[in-house]
Amino acid sequence: MRIEYSDKIICTVRIKIFDKPGFLGKVATIVGDYGGMFGEIKTVHIGKDYKIRDLDIYTDDEKKFAEIVSAIDALDGIEILEIKDVVMEVHEGGKIEVSTPIEIETMDDLSIVYTPGVASVCRKIFEDRSLADRYTTIKKNVAIVTNGTAILGLGDIGPVAGMPVMEGKSLLLRILAGLNGIPILIDSKDPKVIVDTIKNISPTFGAIKLEDIKAPECFEIEKELDEILDIPVMHDDQHGTAVVVLAALINIGKYTFKNIRKSSVGILGLGAAGSGIQKLLMAYGIDKIYGFDINEEMVKRFVQRGGFETESVESLVKSVDIIIATTGCPGLIKKEWVKNGQIILALTNPDPEIKPEDAIAAGALFAADGKSVNNALAFPGIFKGALAANAYTINDAMKIAASETIAKFAMEGDLVPNILNKQVHESVALAVENAAYKSKAVK
Amino acid sequence: MRIEYSDKIICTVRIKIFDKPGFLGKVATIVGDYGGMFGEIKTVHIGKDYKIRDLDIYTDDEKKFAEIVSAIDALDGIEILEIKDVVMEVHEGGKIEVSTPIEIETMDDLSIVYTPGVASVCRKIFEDRSLADRYTTIKKNVAIVTNGTAILGLGDIGPVAGMPVMEGKSLLLRILAGLNGIPILIDSKDPKVIVDTIKNISPTFGAIKLEDIKAPECFEIEKELDEILDIPVMHDDQHGTAVVVLAALINIGKYTFKNIRKSSVGILGLGAAGSGIQKLLMAYGIDKIYGFDINEEMVKRFVQRGGFETESVESLVKSVDIIIATTGCPGLIKKEWVKNGQIILALTNPDPEIKPEDAIAAGALFAADGKSVNNALAFPGIFKGALAANAYTINDAMKIAASETIAKFAMEGDLVPNILNKQVHESVALAVENAAYKSKAVK
Repeated sequence: MRIEYSDKIICTVRIKIFDKPGFLGKVATIVGDYGGMFGEIKTVHIGKDYKIRDLDIYTDDEKKFAEIVSAIDALDGIEILEIKDVVMEVHEGGKIEVSTPIEIETMDDLSIVYTPGVASVCRKIFEDRSLADRYTTIKKNVAIVTNGTAILGLGDIGPVAGMPVMEGKSLLLRILAGLNGIPILIDSKDPKVIVDTIKNISPTFGAIKLEDIKAPECFEIEKELDEILDIPVMHDDQHGTAVVVLAALINIGKYTFKNIRKSSVGILGLGAAGSGIQKLLMAYGIDKIYGFDINEEMVKRFVQRGGFETESVESLVKSVDIIIATTGCPGLIKKEWVKNGQIILALTNPDPEIKPEDAIAAGALFAADGKSVNNALAFPGIFKGALAANAYTINDAMKIAASETIAKFAMEGDLVPNILNKQVHESVALAVENAAYKSKAVK
Repeated sequence: MRIEYSDKIICTVRIKIFDKPGFLGKVATIVGDYGGMFGEIKTVHIGKDYKIRDLDIYTDDEKKFAEIVSAIDALDGIEILEIKDVVMEVHEGGKIEVSTPIEIETMDDLSIVYTPGVASVCRKIFEDRSLADRYTTIKKNVAIVTNGTAILGLGDIGPVAGMPVMEGKSLLLRILAGLNGIPILIDSKDPKVIVDTIKNISPTFGAIKLEDIKAPECFEIEKELDEILDIPVMHDDQHGTAVVVLAALINIGKYTFKNIRKSSVGILGLGAAGSGIQKLLMAYGIDKIYGFDINEEMVKRFVQRGGFETESVESLVKSVDIIIATTGCPGLIKKEWVKNGQIILALTNPDPEIKPEDAIAAGALFAADGKSVNNALAFPGIFKGALAANAYTINDAMKIAASETIAKFAMEGDLVPNILNKQVHESVALAVENAAYKSKAVK
C-alpha cells in the first residue's frame, strides 16, 4: 500500500549554517514552500559560530529538489557542503546477507557443523522428518517470491528490478519477526510455471509469501499453491493490505461509534488490494459490499465472490456508508458525491481519491488517506504466528485475529500503530497462532 | 570427499578428574584402546584438588562410545558428570540466518530501505539492469541446490534430510568467501524438472552450486544449466573434489620428483568424483588415463570422455604409475598388486582401498588416504573468483588455477593446506578471477 512515495526523492543535504536563531527556520520555510518534507535532521559538527547539519529532504521529483537546493544555496549564512543520494548509498551491496550465528574457530568446530558431524543430523532427519523443524532452518525460511509484474506502483518492471523490494521485505521479516526471508525471483509470467517452480522448491521453506504479482494471475497462483502445499501461502498485496485496512476500520468504528458490520461498504478498485479487502470484510461479517472497477474481469470476480456491482463511481459513493478506494486515480471522488456522515478511506497514494479535509468539509464523518496503512504491520506477525502453530494455511480467522490485534495497539485517534513497535508483531504472532489452533488450521 | 566420518559419533563427555599427573592419561589410553579419537579438550573449572573437563570424543558408532564411557566411568578418581551430543546441540535451530547489516531505528531509516525510498532503486535497475550487481545481493547469492539423491555417503535420503549439509556449505561460503549461500531443496529426481526449476529462479542468483546429486543425472543437469544460463554453474562433488585431488597430485609430483603429466593414471570408481577427476586431469595435460568401474554406464561415459577401459581392478592397479581410488570399497586394492615406485591415492573413507602404510610396505613410492582431501578447500574461492570476474562459466583453466594455488599453500610434506586458512581462499579467488579473464570466460 505504501506506494504513495514511489515517485519521491530522498536526499541528504549537508549544510554549514550560521548558528543564530531563525536560520534553520529559513531553510525549513523554503523546503515547505516547494512542497518538500523533512526526514531526520542531524547535527554533524558544532563550530565556533556555525553548525554542520545533515537534512533529509523528501520531494516529489528531481526538478523540485533542484529548485529547493538552489533556493537554499541563495540564502545568506547558509552554505551547502554536500548532497548525498542516501537511498542509493544505503542500497550499495544489497540489504541482506546469509550468515551464521555459529563461531567456527577450529577444525573441531568445523567437524561438528560440516563433515563428519553433520552426517548424523542428516540420518536422524531421514529417520524422522519432523526433526527437520528443529535441526534445520526450514521452519524459519519464508520464500519471498515475485515475478516482477506489479512492483509497488511501478508496474511490470521484471523480477530483477523488483529485488530491492524483496530484500526490504526480508529485512523486515528479520527485524520484526526473526524469520529468514529468502527472495526468489521467478523469470516467468505463466501461472502454471510459477506454481510448479514454487512447488518444486517448497521443501526449502516453512512458508511462501507471494509478492507484487499482478492480478488476475495472483489469484489463481495463490489458490493453487494453497491447495497443493501443506505450508502457509499468502499473497501480501491482497491479504497483508486487507488485514491492515480491517484494523483501520475497526478503530474507525470505535471512534465513530458505528457498527461497521452493519454498514454498507463500497470498494472502489477491485484489483489485488480491493479483492483482498472484499474477502476479509465479508469474512469479518460485512455482507453489504458494493464495488466498481473499470476492468470487467475484476468486476466479474468481485460479483462471483458475493459483491454487488454498481454502474459508476458516483452511484457507488452516493449509496454506501463506508468507501474504501484503491484505484490509483487521484481526485476520483467528487465532493458533491459525499454523503453526510459517510466514512471515507481514500487509499491511493501519493494523492488520494479525495483529500480527507475536503471529504470532511463535504460532510463526511471520518476520512483518511493511505499514508499510514502499511501492510508491513501485518505480514511479519502473520507468518511468525502461522509457523509457530505449524499451520498448513493462513485462513480468515487468522487474518481477522491479526487485524484486531493491530487495531488494539493504535494510539487513541490513530488508525494503526507504529510499524517499528516490536510488541505489535509479537502480539500479532501470538493472536494468529491461537487463531490457527482454534480454527484447526494446523497440521 | 569427507564422507570418511559419516558414521562417526562426536560427543562431549564432561568429567570431574582428580588433579594429579596421569589421570587424564588413563582416560586418553582408554579412548585410544577402543579406537576412539579426541577432538578438543577444554578445562571448564579448576577445583581444590580436581578439574572439570569437557572431552570431545570421536568414535565409529554408539556401541563403541558406550564401551568407552563405561570404561572411563570405572576408573578411580574420574567421574562422568554429563554426556552431551554436541553435534545435535549445535544444529538446534539450524546453522544459518538471513539478516541485514543495516540498522533500522527510525521510520526515516525504514523509508530509505523500504517504501518510499526503495522505489527509486527499482526504477534505476529497471533502466539499467547492470545496476542490480551493485544495489542488490544477486551478485553475492549462490544457490546451493540438491535433490538429496547422493547426500555425503548416505545416498538417497531426500532433500530435506540433506538440508544440514546445504546449511554447512552456506556457512562455509560466508566465513571463507563472504558470499550468500542459499540452500534450495528440489523435490524431484527428474533432470528436466531440476533444470527448469533452477532456470526459472536463476535471476535470484549470481551462481549455481549443484550439490549431492547422484550420477549420472548430475552430469546432464550441470551440462544443460551451464549451456542455458549465463552465470557460473558447478557440481561440487565432481569439480570441487577434482580440484583438490589435482592440488594433492601437484604436491606429490613435487615431493617425489615425478612429472605427473607424463605419468599414467588409473582411476578406480568412475562416478561423480571419478569423472570430475578424469576431466580435470585430462585438462591439466595427463593423457594416459585408465579406469575401472563395475557400473557399465559410468565406464561408457569414461571412455567417451577419452579414458581407456581396463577389465579389472587388478589389471588397472598393476598397469599404472598413479592410482586414484574413489570406489567406496575399503581394502579393494591388494598389496601384491602394488607396483614398485607407484603413487597411490586411496580416497575412500573412512577406510581406504589400501592403507597408506601397507601400500608403502608393498613398494609404493607415495601413498595417502582421503582424510585431508576436502572440497571445501576449493569451492569458496572458485565461486568468489568467478563472481568477481563476472564469469559466465567455470572452465578448466579456472579450476586448474585453483588447484595450483591450493597446492602452493600446503606446508612442506602436506598434500593440501588447512581449510580455515582464509588466505588460501582469498588467493584461490584471485587466481580463479585472473584465469577467467585470461581464458575469456567473462561476460
